[in-house]
Amino acid sequence: MKLLEERIRKDGLVKEGNVLKVDSFLNHQMDVALFSEMGQEFKRLFKDHKINKILTIEASGIGIACVVAQSFNVPVVFAKKAQSINLDGEVYTSKVESFTKKRVYDILVSKKYLGPEDHVLIIDDFLANGCAVLGLLDLINDAGATVEGVGIAIEKGFQQGGRLIRERGIHLESLAIVESMDASTGEITFREQ
Amino acid sequence: MKLLEERIRKDGLVKEGNVLKVDSFLNHQMDVALFSEMGQEFKRLFKDHKINKILTIEASGIGIACVVAQSFNVPVVFAKKAQSINLDGEVYTSKVESFTKKRVYDILVSKKYLGPEDHVLIIDDFLANGCAVLGLLDLINDAGATVEGVGIAIEKGFQQGGRLIRERGIHLESLAIVESMDASTGEITFREQ
Repeated sequence: MKLLEERIRKDGLVKEGNVLKVDSFLNHQMDVALFSEMGQEFKRLFKDHKINKILTIEASGIGIACVVAQSFNVPVVFAKKAQSINLDGEVYTSKVESFTKKRVYDILVSKKYLGPEDHVLIIDDFLANGCAVLGLLDLINDAGATVEGVGIAIEKGFQQGGRLIRERGIHLESLAIVESMDASTGEITFREQ
Repeated sequence: MKLLEERIRKDGLVKEGNVLKVDSFLNHQMDVALFSEMGQEFKRLFKDHKINKILTIEASGIGIACVVAQSFNVPVVFAKKAQSINLDGEVYTSKVESFTKKRVYDILVSKKYLGPEDHVLIIDDFLANGCAVLGLLDLINDAGATVEGVGIAIEKGFQQGGRLIRERGIHLESLAIVESMDASTGEITFREQ
């Protein structure tokens, strides 16, 4: 998606340690008009799928997922990262290792909001090592639901996440795939799509 | 907002300990069509304010804030709950005590995304003891930004948060104010607005 690639080039910051900071428009300050464009693009890319639910993970996936969900006219469920007293205990759980926070945490979804009748599109802001998406796929599998696809804003193409998901035969669409980036020059190269 | 009150009566669950579970449509599974209606209502209620940014707090505020922001045509900034290596250290911070998680945590916003030029509407899903909103007001104050108002989906009118904010002369609008609720009967009474 050219609009997103241009925005990443304009406002993204490449930092040491393969960190791409896009917090001016994607995951701290959020440009909801851009999210709306992304929603229309995902709708086009997944037009051959019957989708009745969007699944994402807190926190930064939620904003994109909610705006994208308007294009699909479906509800969003977000996986929570820790047990809270507001959940009943009747949950599906998995484990995720965070790339940015360097720790392992539990994710969970109430059994009430994911089941065999669901045809699910996963939406998230970043795909790097794939741990978050693989954890969400576990939850969908445990629920007996169907994975229709995975829609990502920015994929780090030089990390394993994209390959791991595509190897499973899952329809993965990343609106921008960073092939390489250079913290010394700030240069970002995108994969041709 | 009648639509929201009716939805709370239909799908909300009253639990012991003054817990109102609305996770089927508000803060775990999210009805984005409802959020869009809420956005139009907030736009009407805050029509006399010039707002250029919406501020919320992770996680469950983000979805509502992003959909509401479409009605205002402004970006959203969400306060994060813990330091991550993706933030620069150049942040405003405050402390919040969570009603549902029974603990105190730090919240932070990058100084890049909140400043004296900002006229801010705070959006959140719940207002109970007011700690989250008061923490966000601290951040806005530290940034030298202007608070234009606070928009809440559900206020627990029998807790102190609403009073604390209104006493400061801040324009607070809650789309539904629960005056009382009874876990034994499931009955919910709303404040007339």
